[in-house]
Amino acid sequence: MNLRIPGPTPLPDEVLEAMSRQMIDHRGPDFEALHAEVVAGLRVFFETESDLFVLTSSGTGGMEAAIANTLSPGDRVLVVNLGVFGKRFGTIASRYGVDVTWMDVTMGQAADPAELERRLREQGPFKAVLITQNETSTGVTNPMQALAAVVRAQDPAPLLMVDAISGLGAIRMPQDAWGIDVVVAGSQKAWMAPPGLAFISFSNRAWAAYEQAKCPRFYFDLGGARRYGQRNQTPSTPNLPAFYALQVSLAMMVAEGPEKVQLRHQQIADYCRAGVERVGGRLYAAEGCRSNTVTALTLPEGVDTSTVLRRLREEYGIICATGRDPSVDMVRIGHMGYVTEADLDAVFEGMSTLLKEMM
Amino acid sequence: MNLRIPGPTPLPDEVLEAMSRQMIDHRGPDFEALHAEVVAGLRVFFETESDLFVLTSSGTGGMEAAIANTLSPGDRVLVVNLGVFGKRFGTIASRYGVDVTWMDVTMGQAADPAELERRLREQGPFKAVLITQNETSTGVTNPMQALAAVVRAQDPAPLLMVDAISGLGAIRMPQDAWGIDVVVAGSQKAWMAPPGLAFISFSNRAWAAYEQAKCPRFYFDLGGARRYGQRNQTPSTPNLPAFYALQVSLAMMVAEGPEKVQLRHQQIADYCRAGVERVGGRLYAAEGCRSNTVTALTLPEGVDTSTVLRRLREEYGIICATGRDPSVDMVRIGHMGYVTEADLDAVFEGMSTLLKEMM
Repeated sequence: MNLRIPGPTPLPDEVLEAMSRQMIDHRGPDFEALHAEVVAGLRVFFETESDLFVLTSSGTGGMEAAIANTLSPGDRVLVVNLGVFGKRFGTIASRYGVDVTWMDVTMGQAADPAELERRLREQGPFKAVLITQNETSTGVTNPMQALAAVVRAQDPAPLLMVDAISGLGAIRMPQDAWGIDVVVAGSQKAWMAPPGLAFISFSNRAWAAYEQAKCPRFYFDLGGARRYGQRNQTPSTPNLPAFYALQVSLAMMVAEGPEKVQLRHQQIADYCRAGVERVGGRLYAAEGCRSNTVTALTLPEGVDTSTVLRRLREEYGIICATGRDPSVDMVRIGHMGYVTEADLDAVFEGMSTLLKEMM
Repeated sequence: MNLRIPGPTPLPDEVLEAMSRQMIDHRGPDFEALHAEVVAGLRVFFETESDLFVLTSSGTGGMEAAIANTLSPGDRVLVVNLGVFGKRFGTIASRYGVDVTWMDVTMGQAADPAELERRLREQGPFKAVLITQNETSTGVTNPMQALAAVVRAQDPAPLLMVDAISGLGAIRMPQDAWGIDVVVAGSQKAWMAPPGLAFISFSNRAWAAYEQAKCPRFYFDLGGARRYGQRNQTPSTPNLPAFYALQVSLAMMVAEGPEKVQLRHQQIADYCRAGVERVGGRLYAAEGCRSNTVTALTLPEGVDTSTVLRRLREEYGIICATGRDPSVDMVRIGHMGYVTEADLDAVFEGMSTLLKEMM
């Protein structure tokens, strides 16, 4: 199978092998060393000195942790909404009684820093701004450096919390240099690891908010994570096989370094976009904000998208993702983590054959 | 290593091998078949027709899901507290603003059904009763059938929610026959699977409570889990390697059947208890309520427990657990899931040699 969805992603053999290691004591020295190594590796790609925690949950749990640990019911937040996952970030906040103001961006577009500045000025003050780094549902990457600068220029500056689940590890976002407070990522995306772990970094400004935050929390309480983290443990039993996997995949990523990892993703994404246009597909995301981890496209008019996806799966063993919005017949191709040009060649060969046959 | 803590537990080779399978699409037919098979296998051991969900979290996340999906701030609940994990169940409820009445039981003892009946009568009414089936911190199993009967005999009967994390899969607790509403379990205990998944069953009475429950929830929202569960999917990306593992381990357990699995745990626990007494240890749990999944013991007076645990680890490769209460010098031996008499022989041989040397 050629799994080309935007996560879970295929894993290298060394990573798969690591997952079949026997279980260990999560309160003993072997786990403590493993935890320390994984956190150190993550830190290279988060580019932060802030606290960094590994939670046993999917990425959505990390998004909920960001909210529950910093906010109280009634707090005002601005949510920059580019699609399904921006919507999710704001919806979680609403569930906790947080007062959400939406900055809805046209699908397929990135957020405009000037528009964000205007919203903050006219509709503020806000306790926090919630932004998606890379919107998986539309294949759009936000201009995070410029957006972060706008947020930090406010006085007082709202907390800046970023869902970087489908971007970080492939698309750089130097947290400390850009002044971001909370960053959430997920193991099954660019990290060449299986699903089941969320990562969350937490700045000193976020800790100050934590002291005031009245949203209820226990499993995702970062105060507990901090206490246990000091001895390289986790409050609850951690997802050990995913830690084993990350130890191996992060070693590979750290050896390559963030610059080269980013360049590799830029190149494979360019290769994917060229392939889309070659077979007659239309790139969904606007030029200038196209994601280097996932490409969204529409097929030529008259072609039934769901038939193409089904036949790619059944006849070619290629699994691409559908769109998340039923109003758009979208195909999404994941190209994060462990992926080669040959993997994409197979996609476009199959797609090209099917399109010729069906048009 | 001979990992003899009460979870994570050692896994059979077939299960370890299954975890190194390549990732699949969590929105495709292969995962849907896997999900259906895992839920069907769990159902055999939950002994319920209720809805049953697999959450990507540790067991504690499942406990939080039980509370957040059924209760509102201010609701009154009775928590039957036998130790660390009973305390945790009530603490989670308190964090959500639930009004907790504690029924504290002497450490090492089980809850007395007559005392529970008296509490419910004198201190009620309660919206829910929270009980631990098997208290890992003291090696005590509660008389769940009698306790459940007391709760269900109330009019109106409170919801009965049971943390069965360290018991279920080894110690039977037929949910429907005994009238239990919510049962929580965890993959790394008796299920011969790795950590990273919690299981939660949810009765029709629990769904009626859900409709009224105002605690905030998103990641652990069972309404979302029910919607996705209808097509054998999960709302967020599931912990795939743990699903692969469970598919194999549950097939082994289902082939053996709940009666034989229970008998096997009874026998290995008897074997462990005999071993403890043979080397001069004292069983911590009172007679009649000793757990079949974990044995707590104290060593003869004058022996430094932490030295014994350290030397067992360093010189014999045997990892037992310490106590969770600093006021008691306790050793805990896990014997759930994949464990043989030979594994326990090694523990007692090592312990016996060390005790002779140290006394």
